[in-house]
Amino acid sequence: MKKLINDPARVTDESVEGFGLVHADLVTVHTDPIFVVRVGAPVAGKVGLVSGGGSGHEPLHAGFVGVGMLDAAVPGAMFTSPTPDAIAPATVAANGGRGVLHIVKNYTGDVLNFETAAELAEADGIEVRTVVVNDDVAVQDSLYTAGRRGVAGTVPVEKIAGAAAERGDDLASVAAIAERVIANVRTMGVALEACTVPHAGVPSFDLTDEEIEIGIGIHGEPGRHRIPMAPADEITEMLTTPVLDDLGISGGEQVLLLVNGMGGTPLSELYVVYRAARKLVEARGATVARSLVGNYVTSLEMQGCSVTVLRLDDELTALWDAPVHTAALRW
Amino acid sequence: MKKLINDPARVTDESVEGFGLVHADLVTVHTDPIFVVRVGAPVAGKVGLVSGGGSGHEPLHAGFVGVGMLDAAVPGAMFTSPTPDAIAPATVAANGGRGVLHIVKNYTGDVLNFETAAELAEADGIEVRTVVVNDDVAVQDSLYTAGRRGVAGTVPVEKIAGAAAERGDDLASVAAIAERVIANVRTMGVALEACTVPHAGVPSFDLTDEEIEIGIGIHGEPGRHRIPMAPADEITEMLTTPVLDDLGISGGEQVLLLVNGMGGTPLSELYVVYRAARKLVEARGATVARSLVGNYVTSLEMQGCSVTVLRLDDELTALWDAPVHTAALRW
Repeated sequence: MKKLINDPARVTDESVEGFGLVHADLVTVHTDPIFVVRVGAPVAGKVGLVSGGGSGHEPLHAGFVGVGMLDAAVPGAMFTSPTPDAIAPATVAANGGRGVLHIVKNYTGDVLNFETAAELAEADGIEVRTVVVNDDVAVQDSLYTAGRRGVAGTVPVEKIAGAAAERGDDLASVAAIAERVIANVRTMGVALEACTVPHAGVPSFDLTDEEIEIGIGIHGEPGRHRIPMAPADEITEMLTTPVLDDLGISGGEQVLLLVNGMGGTPLSELYVVYRAARKLVEARGATVARSLVGNYVTSLEMQGCSVTVLRLDDELTALWDAPVHTAALRW
Repeated sequence: MKKLINDPARVTDESVEGFGLVHADLVTVHTDPIFVVRVGAPVAGKVGLVSGGGSGHEPLHAGFVGVGMLDAAVPGAMFTSPTPDAIAPATVAANGGRGVLHIVKNYTGDVLNFETAAELAEADGIEVRTVVVNDDVAVQDSLYTAGRRGVAGTVPVEKIAGAAAERGDDLASVAAIAERVIANVRTMGVALEACTVPHAGVPSFDLTDEEIEIGIGIHGEPGRHRIPMAPADEITEMLTTPVLDDLGISGGEQVLLLVNGMGGTPLSELYVVYRAARKLVEARGATVARSLVGNYVTSLEMQGCSVTVLRLDDELTALWDAPVHTAALRW
């Protein structure tokens, strides 16, 4: 294992410390327990947004803390859920008096720990609502999940719910907007090469030099099937068609198309995939009205990508377009 | 070789086409020959900025086309200089009547091809000045270079010269600002794993499971020495100290610190390196006044990073802070 780390047990601490130094204008980093809070939080009169999950998926979630998106993020250890004793104070730090929305990716550990933290925060008099992101169409249940996994669709959920909170929506409304995004977003991914979790020291799975895995999870969990390496256009079709079918995208609709890198794939290749995915959307008579291409929900240095489609309506589009100022998204 | 591509000979075309579709609000993509032009260019009365080089280093250079940075970028084939017949029309497209600055990374092919293109443009009555970026302190001459190589220091050169052009400086002044950045910026990189150029099909060099290469170039050209894998803090010291020494950074100075990923290294690790590099700057009594961490000048999926330091003064800081709206840098 060759990684730019010191002690494997300290990777998250040191990385989040570095992140906090670079982005001191946007975030404050709390240690012991670790969580990241937007500068100026809690914002009085605004619904607070908190998300979190295992580290190793950067820039998710800390990279999305800032104006127009999250108020706090709670990074766990690598590929490990954050604990309630970190989520609870992050929830307090995000609470501006109108309650807090927890945005949770659907993994059993995350769901349980956010639930316990919500109970702790509610005991302190903070109203908490929770939404669970489950956009991955590849598998129905997985190693770590009852129901579909939450993957790159988390980005539009956090962006759009964040914009709704920023414009002054109440907790029920922000939660309803988040649920609307969740109901209309689907993702599927592919891995070309595995990643290595530092404390494990060996790749999380093995692929031969000729194999790729369609439907991979963001922790390297098994997907639908392994196939021989294929041209990008064919791989993109295997990811995009199930996503469009599951959503039932048809002519005249407008979508957001997100091609997300898993961390170790060159940006140039993500644009090749985007080009192919966009043609598939357009072949259905739908329009790609908004796009995002880059590394947003990664799996350390895994090579591969995912394709996410969100069905847009006028309100979701306006909330997507609303100003955002975070480390990883800014406009 | 497993890559998200179709025909290796068409990677750059398809990737740039995808890039143009995503960023149609910022750029127009010309084909045959390929170059990328800022929407609205040429900007009347503004000095035009053109850069380019082999593909495989994305987001460099096309990702830096837009308001406050480049007017045009010319991507060559993978790791191959663009040809004069592409650079010349890009120069014409960037010319708003006050001349064009060519920003060239110091590789023999790039220098020659931009020189020929400048002659072609001048024959058309366009005044062209050229600056050559040579920030890599690792080696004096290299496989492809007489003198130091141009690497991640290209980002602040393009950003700061772009801001000078945007505020209305004339060609000589924009060139002088670019030269001031070049005189005050240095970089050194490390590779943990090689990358594979699509048309070659095999890794550009071999490292054992225990080896890393200090001072690597962005095409995998040899650096200073190979050493056994070491903790991130030690590797960072091997990169940062030569950079600070070469610049002669001392107490009381202000610097920009850029930790650049080579493409295949997780963002979390770049923050670990940043944390260590910042301590080394501060140990000299200098201040990290501005920071940038991410994948900006990559080598396909190479694993590794580089550390860049730019000595700041008030004017360079103000130009760095000036608004920029490109695919890869925006504030």
